[in-house]
Amino acid sequence: MEKKISSLQNKTVKYLTQLQEKSRTRRKEKRFVIEGFREITLAIEASYELETIYFCNKIFQEKELFTENFSALNVVELSKEVYQKVAYRGSTEGILAIAKAKENDLASLKFKTENPLILVAEAPEKPGNIGAILRTADAAKVDAVLIANPKTDIYNPNIIRSSVGCVFTNQIASGNTSEIISYLKEKNIAIYSAILQDSEIYTNQDFTSATAIIIGTEADGLSEEWRKAATKNIHIPMQGKIDSMNVSVAAGILIFEAKRQRNFD
Amino acid sequence: MEKKISSLQNKTVKYLTQLQEKSRTRRKEKRFVIEGFREITLAIEASYELETIYFCNKIFQEKELFTENFSALNVVELSKEVYQKVAYRGSTEGILAIAKAKENDLASLKFKTENPLILVAEAPEKPGNIGAILRTADAAKVDAVLIANPKTDIYNPNIIRSSVGCVFTNQIASGNTSEIISYLKEKNIAIYSAILQDSEIYTNQDFTSATAIIIGTEADGLSEEWRKAATKNIHIPMQGKIDSMNVSVAAGILIFEAKRQRNFD
Repeated sequence: MEKKISSLQNKTVKYLTQLQEKSRTRRKEKRFVIEGFREITLAIEASYELETIYFCNKIFQEKELFTENFSALNVVELSKEVYQKVAYRGSTEGILAIAKAKENDLASLKFKTENPLILVAEAPEKPGNIGAILRTADAAKVDAVLIANPKTDIYNPNIIRSSVGCVFTNQIASGNTSEIISYLKEKNIAIYSAILQDSEIYTNQDFTSATAIIIGTEADGLSEEWRKAATKNIHIPMQGKIDSMNVSVAAGILIFEAKRQRNFD
Repeated sequence: MEKKISSLQNKTVKYLTQLQEKSRTRRKEKRFVIEGFREITLAIEASYELETIYFCNKIFQEKELFTENFSALNVVELSKEVYQKVAYRGSTEGILAIAKAKENDLASLKFKTENPLILVAEAPEKPGNIGAILRTADAAKVDAVLIANPKTDIYNPNIIRSSVGCVFTNQIASGNTSEIISYLKEKNIAIYSAILQDSEIYTNQDFTSATAIIIGTEADGLSEEWRKAATKNIHIPMQGKIDSMNVSVAAGILIFEAKRQRNFD
């Protein structure tokens, strides 16, 4: 059953590399690569369908862990040279998988509560910030993270890595800004747009009903559409010399103010 | 008056490069390099003493801005080749300066209030996180940022860059953990150590008196010393699948809870 790839010329090598590097390939193939045992396990728990597991005997030593968890899957062994060629993180883990991407469309969202807390990020760019936001969203157990006008797909290897797997533990959907606004309005979810113009202090709002908190980018803030669609525009008071805060920090402050108001329920 | 350096062999080139790259050189020389017009301006506002300004005519075009602000300083022109060799950020700005480091010792701290809000970060490592923490500290106008058991000096070029200059707008001091604990106790500043063990929810604390919030690293948390010295140990409830939050996000959540309780005064 088990195959082994030792040649860098094998076409799987090119395929894995392109899935790692190119958003276009991921979208076309509806597949992406997950690196690391922990991340793969989280993806399985999140009902991601894994197509193939690739591992390198020389690096990935925990064979027992391996058979216990992945015995039903298609498994291919890679030589160390091949593994190091296809791995994005270098040789630290020794295991990766091809998984089928989820649709992540708005229609597939499901909420367990009538008062969901949702975080919307418009056009986030830096994988490190997106990862930090997804970690915060997991910690706060928000009901969904929505990406408006995405600049990249969430299966970017840098996002998977910097989210330490939280890309799999959160319910995520993306769509363009107008679609998301319509969706939220239709569901009677209040829209709190983080924006300076005509806005109120975030701590004076009531985030206990169905709430979406919307954050933009550090460079451009939120689009005009969000300002107009807002139930309220809100801001975090900036009292220093420099009006500047990391976007994932701002998201954390807003989300955890909502959590505080909800008694961390 | 104005000198020009066009040769890569000039000893200033090596000196600038070492100041940028080596913490040891910065400590020995008690000097560091600031890149960028905005950052240099902030340093001047913060009473940093600049020794020399280096600029490249080909890149830095705003000559008027230049004479207006730096006319009293020692100014040296660099050829484009030399500038690109010594600049850390590449050629985007065209201006840098050598500044004298401040002592940043606990004894030099001054507070304008009897109830200061202080952020202490123990052994922070990633310049990106330190930068984000300093941006948050500026936005919250905390009274001081203390670095306990520093792993790097704050004049690391990556910290200056990622803090977008907030390394100059905050009052910063560093020292080892026991020194800082003694300092805080002596000043009757309550110590809230962010730690999971034996800790209470952060929102149930009163941060309105003189308060220091202490955060550790993502990898190791806080040292035992801080747990024992704490007025209270506090935690942010983690309700997701992964107990993981970016350290600068956690710092932001704690600091802004204190700000909320203080009515952003």
